[in-house]
Amino acid sequence: MTEHSPEFTLSCPTPLETHATVQMAHGGGGRLMRRLIEDLFLPGFGTDPAGNPPHDSAVLDVPAGRLAFTTDTFVVSPLVFPGGDIGHLAVYGTVNDLAMAGAQPLALSAGFILEEGLPIEMLRRVVDSLGHAADEVGERIVTGDTKVVDRGPGDGIFINTAGVGLVPPGVNISPRRVAPGDAILLSGDLGRHGIAIMSVREGLGFEGAIASDCASLAGLVAALVQADPDVHCLRDLTRGGLAAALCEIADGARVGIQLREASIPVSAPVDGACELLGLDPLYVANEGRLVAFVPAQAAERTLEIMRAHKAAPEPAVIGTVTADHPGTVELRNSLGGSRVVDLLSGEQMPRIC
Amino acid sequence: MTEHSPEFTLSCPTPLETHATVQMAHGGGGRLMRRLIEDLFLPGFGTDPAGNPPHDSAVLDVPAGRLAFTTDTFVVSPLVFPGGDIGHLAVYGTVNDLAMAGAQPLALSAGFILEEGLPIEMLRRVVDSLGHAADEVGERIVTGDTKVVDRGPGDGIFINTAGVGLVPPGVNISPRRVAPGDAILLSGDLGRHGIAIMSVREGLGFEGAIASDCASLAGLVAALVQADPDVHCLRDLTRGGLAAALCEIADGARVGIQLREASIPVSAPVDGACELLGLDPLYVANEGRLVAFVPAQAAERTLEIMRAHKAAPEPAVIGTVTADHPGTVELRNSLGGSRVVDLLSGEQMPRIC
Repeated sequence: MTEHSPEFTLSCPTPLETHATVQMAHGGGGRLMRRLIEDLFLPGFGTDPAGNPPHDSAVLDVPAGRLAFTTDTFVVSPLVFPGGDIGHLAVYGTVNDLAMAGAQPLALSAGFILEEGLPIEMLRRVVDSLGHAADEVGERIVTGDTKVVDRGPGDGIFINTAGVGLVPPGVNISPRRVAPGDAILLSGDLGRHGIAIMSVREGLGFEGAIASDCASLAGLVAALVQADPDVHCLRDLTRGGLAAALCEIADGARVGIQLREASIPVSAPVDGACELLGLDPLYVANEGRLVAFVPAQAAERTLEIMRAHKAAPEPAVIGTVTADHPGTVELRNSLGGSRVVDLLSGEQMPRIC
Repeated sequence: MTEHSPEFTLSCPTPLETHATVQMAHGGGGRLMRRLIEDLFLPGFGTDPAGNPPHDSAVLDVPAGRLAFTTDTFVVSPLVFPGGDIGHLAVYGTVNDLAMAGAQPLALSAGFILEEGLPIEMLRRVVDSLGHAADEVGERIVTGDTKVVDRGPGDGIFINTAGVGLVPPGVNISPRRVAPGDAILLSGDLGRHGIAIMSVREGLGFEGAIASDCASLAGLVAALVQADPDVHCLRDLTRGGLAAALCEIADGARVGIQLREASIPVSAPVDGACELLGLDPLYVANEGRLVAFVPAQAAERTLEIMRAHKAAPEPAVIGTVTADHPGTVELRNSLGGSRVVDLLSGEQMPRIC
């Protein structure tokens, strides 16, 4: 190569808080990015920079077995909402996806896209939340990445988390195992997350009454599979709510699903907000609820285990799996009437996770 | 719950190409998202939808051992550039990060953030590229996610890929192992990727002469560690180029690095473009080049293996590791002069990966 001048280099260290907002240079692979990693990300994740010279991959010891692997991207708007922020959501969302395969979480990755101009203070808050949530579920953030993009609509942060976990021997949880006769249990009331987001976004003033239910379901799932490794299928309720989760399973397993409307818990504030907004709580997102499909004879025992766990605040048997009408979810009301629950075209509310 | 009307549901199937562009509803967890997954993502990734009812995690059988885990987010602008597009980059970038730990790739995740208004045709192109690149490196996309965000600056697609791989027994590649006396080898010429991107972005007209070097390094690394499992450290050159990679390693391993400028290959078109743009090729990104740190006595053998591999088009021994001046990278020119190579504050060019 020919010689080039070294003017591009900067030899004095720059403290992170010199800039109040994220600059394009924070994503450039240079000194400012290193500051961001060493002064903000690593402390937020509880990682000692001195003990960890940067490497392109994390390396984990694993036993022989089945590895669960999942990814989820979070684009929620606003970033902070009653009950949590995008940092909590990024941990719980991916931990819950691992848990739905019966896996015990092993490690998480975190990939950030930051918008130029994002206040460093907001980034610090989100990274700290992410670190605390990971800590709470006994999970480590072992690898990460940061990119900075031009100013956009002002949302500021998108986060992708991927996760790996180990499926305990004997556990075999999959939509394929759902069978006619299975009981369907729901761990708690519907719609808190979606309504909490909508309330802030639309300035509806429900903020005091309705907080997001976002939470880890890993502990609840560990208790369920320990008591009965024969759980057939688990699914957490996110985009599209209970309706989307059940439609997908009915279709994938080629079974029918019958729900009893009166047994599905919805809190009075969520029900009221749904009436006001013209929303159906069946389709509103949760971020800390699951449905479990278990053999009929295991339903009572599963309900007892849920009742004993804080992550299942209002568990209920809400329906059964049938051989009739494969691919169809039917909701029966207390007067004997029924309607088919179908997938929406899109989503009642965008950007909720 | 109280009863709600079913007007939100849509009972007729909607072909994907009914919409020429991505809608918010494509990210909503409903019918349109399902169309996108079944008609575009799964075929692009070579996955049979019928054989794979949707599940929250992929489950892989793994032997006992060391699992490498990494993540990378891609925000390159423009999405398509000479030599590839963001889909190729998303596969090679993460596969290369796994390879830098000596790992054989096992599986990838893909998380997409799509901007409302993105042409479906562009999305299909990128997803197909991603699928083809994965296929080429013998890698599977086993889990994915899609979110849609409001119209922004018009970039259209951000992709996160995370990857898992297995580190073969006996292989121990890490910056910690870099030691005084090690030879430093570079697999090929500098700066092609960054200059290819800049050329399109700035309309410089180098497009014919300079294509991105983006490529998988997994095969090259497999050949290197098979021949000599004692490779000390590997690092691919991305943001911040050769300079950032070496500064980080010198700092992390607390060693000095001495480079011979005349031995560092830079093609004439890249050198010319750098002169014109006022850039230093040492800092310009590649996406298909690596540096290897090996014991001095292994340098010739390593060079031979590189010469025999298509992913190392112009391999060279470019320097040595010293005990003097720990944390410092020094570049010596042919006249006997030298300069310190330091991290830039940011990046000479943003959004290149």
